[in-house]
Amino acid sequence: CPPPGMLPLCHRPPAWGRAAQQPPCLPFTPCRAFSNNKILVELDESSGVATMKFKSPPVNSLSLDFLTEFCISLEKLENDRACRGVIFTSAVPKIFSSGLDITEMCGKTTEHYTEFWRAVQEMWLRLYGSNMVTVAAVNGSSPAGGCLLALSCDYRIMVENPKFSIGLNEAQLGIVAPFWFKDTFVNVVGHRVAERSLQLGSLHPAPEAHKFGIVDELVPEEKLQEKAAAVMAQWLALPDHARQLTKSMMRKAVLDRLLAHREEDIQNFISFISKESIQKSLRMYMEMLKKKKS
Amino acid sequence: CPPPGMLPLCHRPPAWGRAAQQPPCLPFTPCRAFSNNKILVELDESSGVATMKFKSPPVNSLSLDFLTEFCISLEKLENDRACRGVIFTSAVPKIFSSGLDITEMCGKTTEHYTEFWRAVQEMWLRLYGSNMVTVAAVNGSSPAGGCLLALSCDYRIMVENPKFSIGLNEAQLGIVAPFWFKDTFVNVVGHRVAERSLQLGSLHPAPEAHKFGIVDELVPEEKLQEKAAAVMAQWLALPDHARQLTKSMMRKAVLDRLLAHREEDIQNFISFISKESIQKSLRMYMEMLKKKKS
Amino acid sequence: CPPPGMLPLCHRPPAWGRAAQQPPCLPFTPCRAFSNNKILVELDESSGVATMKFKSPPVNSLSLDFLTEFCISLEKLENDRACRGVIFTSAVPKIFSSGLDITEMCGKTTEHYTEFWRAVQEMWLRLYGSNMVTVAAVNGSSPAGGCLLALSCDYRIMVENPKFSIGLNEAQLGIVAPFWFKDTFVNVVGHRVAERSLQLGSLHPAPEAHKFGIVDELVPEEKLQEKAAAVMAQWLALPDHARQLTKSMMRKAVLDRLLAHREEDIQNFISFISKESIQKSLRMYMEMLKKKKS
Repeated sequence: CPPPGMLPLCHRPPAWGRAAQQPPCLPFTPCRAFSNNKILVELDESSGVATMKFKSPPVNSLSLDFLTEFCISLEKLENDRACRGVIFTSAVPKIFSSGLDITEMCGKTTEHYTEFWRAVQEMWLRLYGSNMVTVAAVNGSSPAGGCLLALSCDYRIMVENPKFSIGLNEAQLGIVAPFWFKDTFVNVVGHRVAERSLQLGSLHPAPEAHKFGIVDELVPEEKLQEKAAAVMAQWLALPDHARQLTKSMMRKAVLDRLLAHREEDIQNFISFISKESIQKSLRMYMEMLKKKKS
Repeated sequence: CPPPGMLPLCHRPPAWGRAAQQPPCLPFTPCRAFSNNKILVELDESSGVATMKFKSPPVNSLSLDFLTEFCISLEKLENDRACRGVIFTSAVPKIFSSGLDITEMCGKTTEHYTEFWRAVQEMWLRLYGSNMVTVAAVNGSSPAGGCLLALSCDYRIMVENPKFSIGLNEAQLGIVAPFWFKDTFVNVVGHRVAERSLQLGSLHPAPEAHKFGIVDELVPEEKLQEKAAAVMAQWLALPDHARQLTKSMMRKAVLDRLLAHREEDIQNFISFISKESIQKSLRMYMEMLKKKKS
Repeated sequence: CPPPGMLPLCHRPPAWGRAAQQPPCLPFTPCRAFSNNKILVELDESSGVATMKFKSPPVNSLSLDFLTEFCISLEKLENDRACRGVIFTSAVPKIFSSGLDITEMCGKTTEHYTEFWRAVQEMWLRLYGSNMVTVAAVNGSSPAGGCLLALSCDYRIMVENPKFSIGLNEAQLGIVAPFWFKDTFVNVVGHRVAERSLQLGSLHPAPEAHKFGIVDELVPEEKLQEKAAAVMAQWLALPDHARQLTKSMMRKAVLDRLLAHREEDIQNFISFISKESIQKSLRMYMEMLKKKKS
């Protein structure tokens, strides 16, 4: 495959599905499966569908390392002509992703906060703006940043277990979801549901999440991967180019808003997170989590 | 009646319903019923309601001729003081309108594409911005531009036959719905439903279209005209002036967006439609339709 | 308590709930309960919840006096550290509020119209932008401005009696809801429901209002206050600071729009209301109301 960025016209065909149209550019493409520490990536070249499986116990928290690996893996797939869609799921029982890693936000330097927040932005910009079809197979709870990750996909399927919940619950921790979390949420559930859910910091059990449109579908746990593959096949039946332009048309305004205010958003995060009151809240929350665990 | 544009204050009364308030300005108004080739227009002066019946077999496709006639007919009614509302329906069995005529977009000159696209814009600008109450009585399938036509009305009633479907299915043909198709759709069904439906190029069977809010109501075929008349009467019970200002307030932002980018939108259309890959897709699609027919 | 505006940092704590965190700043705070002519305000300092009960018979219409008292009462509570939330309800049977007082809009001077409209704007700016949790306990009909008042709260509970109705029915009177009424409505119910309801000037019976999302919940009349208290407790369980910033993030765009066009909006109102046709419509409407009454 050509290096990313060198032959942009090669990356996406102009119209119709690529799988039917294009032979792989090399007899053995280099990106069959790769795993680093925190995410297992498998690409089925016959279908053009990759799976990114989060395996960062105990709770798949979005640490700086996780986010970096996520962005690198996603970019590799984005630039791999054999890949047209990605399914995101968890290898950790009962949890999809617990969201931003609080340890990255507690007692660190300004430089660290800057690097961390830029990585969070990057994750969202790449995922929400991905040219590939993205399906979240939510097989566990998914608060805060974990919910954002699911909301940024094209389609969300969740295990129907009411013990699994999902939501942007930042307000519960005394912090505020950034405007682009909010914009993403509003695009999925509308203004009213978003306003109420964000203010209450609600974590919605799967059936309620489905009722409010936070996830598109509920399935029994044993049917999840099969259902995700079927949904993916339905989306991949469309010609890539038209689908990609349509997706971009729908999401561009919200993506552009972060791009236009990216540094400002980092500064806001740093000045908020550096407040002693917020640091104290987060420390208390972490201690509570530790106690709960032991 | 005064010529259009001469006495703007005469065209719409300042408040309350016109029917009750105003005698016709001439004993015999000139616009009782007129038919050209493709659309039959009937005006019932007692109710103030006109019906525009599409009779352009086989599928009421929106050709340049159809669009021109549509705009002229609508403008006539708009300027006719005896007319306060229009019902749109089809005289062709099983089809409301098949949308933009693909033959207008295939193998033609740039001048032709320009003229055609301007006519499509004009149709939407006049219909979405009409001062009259507009009701779509959808008595057949209504893909793409046909769906846009229905979405641009104030109210949509569809025959409950699940064989009839409706949707902005452009992506299925490898093309992208223009931004103002998308804006109109989002105003009706919200961002999430629009994003998914546009990306999948979905054609929704009537019951699903109703579930997603694409149409407001389903009725048996034999009740359609009666229901359309009843809905129209409900809307006409309101004073025209307040209703018109309210409608304008709701739709102005989206109308202004096309007005501000009209030439750019034409250029986009031309450069997109002139691509060999798109021309090839459209030719293949037309051949498929021909085979299906024979 | 410090005078309003003097110690802004004192008014709202930086994070977490105030009730748990803060002792009252004086042993006996001065604002337990106060009543002027038209609104009874009671503050329960143990819960931090105030109730504003409209007692301006016959229909709690939003006269200049009512609006002035409303704004003063709300500002007092806003600046009272012992108060974190307000429940709005009516002491007049069968009516929550009948909306803007038509007598203020009929046969008055331009100066009066200016003062009145500024007070209407002020009511909305303070309520929609309130830092406190606001719950509408709608125990009667609530047309026009009364509906706006409910829509501007964080949560709406309505008595399930289908004889009580709610809606922005301005179009029925031949007048047009201002753009910020419309913006508030769209934020609650979405564009489509708002467009249809505003154009028809619909007054929705309680069950329909619930179906369309105009109110969040229906309860039997005898359960209303209890339910409002329970909902309030749920919202107050969140840390104030994060909840307030989230609320502001959701509502700022719409609030800023009126702030940027406030004088223009006043001029629009005056020039509209000063039209002889509108004055005539309003006089006819008032006479109809008088006849209905007698």
